[in-house]
Amino acid sequence: MQATVETKAFKEAVGLIERVVPRAPQSPLRALVMVQAGEEGLRLLGSDGAHDLELRLAARVEGRGRTLVPAGVLARLAHSAPGEEVALRLEEGQGLELRSGPFEGRLSVSDPTGYPDAAFGPTSGRLSAPALLGALGRVRYATASSGGGYAFRCVLLELAAGGAALRAVASDGYRLALQGPPLTPGPRLLLPREAVDDALRVFKDEEAELAWGVTDGTLTLEGARARMALRLGNGDFPDYERVIPREWEAAAELEAEALRHSLQRLRPVLGKEAHRVDLTFLAQGLHLAATGEWGRSEEELPAKVAGRTPFSVSYNARYLLEALAPLEGRVRLEPAGAARPTRVEAAEPDGYQAVVMPLKV
Amino acid sequence: MQATVETKAFKEAVGLIERVVPRAPQSPLRALVMVQAGEEGLRLLGSDGAHDLELRLAARVEGRGRTLVPAGVLARLAHSAPGEEVALRLEEGQGLELRSGPFEGRLSVSDPTGYPDAAFGPTSGRLSAPALLGALGRVRYATASSGGGYAFRCVLLELAAGGAALRAVASDGYRLALQGPPLTPGPRLLLPREAVDDALRVFKDEEAELAWGVTDGTLTLEGARARMALRLGNGDFPDYERVIPREWEAAAELEAEALRHSLQRLRPVLGKEAHRVDLTFLAQGLHLAATGEWGRSEEELPAKVAGRTPFSVSYNARYLLEALAPLEGRVRLEPAGAARPTRVEAAEPDGYQAVVMPLKV
Repeated sequence: MQATVETKAFKEAVGLIERVVPRAPQSPLRALVMVQAGEEGLRLLGSDGAHDLELRLAARVEGRGRTLVPAGVLARLAHSAPGEEVALRLEEGQGLELRSGPFEGRLSVSDPTGYPDAAFGPTSGRLSAPALLGALGRVRYATASSGGGYAFRCVLLELAAGGAALRAVASDGYRLALQGPPLTPGPRLLLPREAVDDALRVFKDEEAELAWGVTDGTLTLEGARARMALRLGNGDFPDYERVIPREWEAAAELEAEALRHSLQRLRPVLGKEAHRVDLTFLAQGLHLAATGEWGRSEEELPAKVAGRTPFSVSYNARYLLEALAPLEGRVRLEPAGAARPTRVEAAEPDGYQAVVMPLKV
Repeated sequence: MQATVETKAFKEAVGLIERVVPRAPQSPLRALVMVQAGEEGLRLLGSDGAHDLELRLAARVEGRGRTLVPAGVLARLAHSAPGEEVALRLEEGQGLELRSGPFEGRLSVSDPTGYPDAAFGPTSGRLSAPALLGALGRVRYATASSGGGYAFRCVLLELAAGGAALRAVASDGYRLALQGPPLTPGPRLLLPREAVDDALRVFKDEEAELAWGVTDGTLTLEGARARMALRLGNGDFPDYERVIPREWEAAAELEAEALRHSLQRLRPVLGKEAHRVDLTFLAQGLHLAATGEWGRSEEELPAKVAGRTPFSVSYNARYLLEALAPLEGRVRLEPAGAARPTRVEAAEPDGYQAVVMPLKV
């Protein structure tokens, strides 16, 4: 077979596949990418055993064929291809030949027999790609990287029956992030954080809809150029609605960016492992201070404050910064108490809510 | 004392000092920066025991004073200073206060008594900053990072008596780089590679001359805003002139950039630890090939070739790439034989020469 593709599209596709394929897989077959040419064009398929990714490329194809090549080497070769196009050629016993401009490479190949089948299932619904990726991207930070229950290392994706609406929720037990409206009961899917990261990368340029379907514990997502099968997690996600405070003891409304910059300026005096910042809600604004190994920093920001003043509460600065990161414009901080959760959202609610537990005094 | 400086200049200066000050020094005093205000403005002084760096900043100063603060914390505070200016204030027993816009920080300080004296010596000559930095920057890559004789981890700096001309030379025993004309015997200084890196960073914006002087095994360099004392190395630099081949068996003249890109494209098939590329000088051009763990890559570049053809020689691709890195436009490769050194220089000689040993077959 021979297939000719545009270099730029090839580079992007191989780059995406390379990140899915594990560097040190349990089975050596998993370090390989399937390169497949046929009537439908050129397809690349990679897997880490839990996520399968298929990318489709427009190509001029002669003949049919498929083979396995090492993902890392293919990506590096593609990355430096000097021509406008890349021509791939596969001949019995010859390896995969790759030509681009003056460059000519021949990659050793492996027999594709025995490469595990991908877990793609049928799709039945459609959902907005920007809505899905936006929601996953906004809550991803609140997953736990290790420890805690399994659900803490996943994003909970709630889908309305037809995919017309969705909500994403993540929590590591100390904070919670949520994007989307409350939904009437429909599918509730647990997406491991690595699956979320892969989906965010693969579909980031999709502007329209994705087809979706769930079969045998696998979510299949299909866009114009890519199809993914994501193994879903099992487990119970905590009753997160119960965690979101409905009342507040004090509230401050102020510019998200000013607050972020201020928090960042306070941190250097704390030393490496310390993150504590003290916020005091004053009648005329918000006072921030950090006291640590290297000294003390403080500043006061203009804010519209309501409720009890002066009111003091302490946070992990990193958690507060991460909760604020998705927000622009004016935001509200609503502590339910010095030892109770604080709600963070945009002053003009946009479907995003974060909850941060204060640090104990 | 109180000193007010422009934030931008302060950030730059603190950033430079921080990189000289070691992160885990043998003496805890070495993790500190001296902040000193007086009639001459604001001075920052840092040292890692082998290199001393003093930076001078234009400042509005009231009173005099000096203190020691942790370099890393000062740099991070400076980095996030929100105002146009930074005001530093030192009062007995109060730490160093740093204000900028709404931000107010107070850094713990240490008693400056007992901080070791810097090794700055008098200067007697002057030399062109761009010529010095250009020469050091072009040959630095050829120093050894470890192993070999001590001189292999240094750049040899040869100076004409008055500093009117200079030559820099580096070698790790496998390759050599040289910039500058042959000089009549004058000072020959061994600059450890870390000293070279510090000098390149500190003086990179100096466009005019630097004053220099050597006393007690230390090179003092002084520019408009910075002064450095660099402890010199002891040892004999090899007789490098003997290593530069005066004759060649084949020669190729071609575009440096095309050759670099070609070498980079060949590498992926080699695998991680392999670097071997095979060059064949042909009547009509240069043929490059790499054969490795993952397959074979090759290409042919147009080149003006003289001498014996076909003539084959193998190199460490990284060494060849590093030798070519300082060059633009057309270059010449002149192998003295398949097992003898190859000279690399610009087709229109510009004072730079590199020598690379081929790999044994």
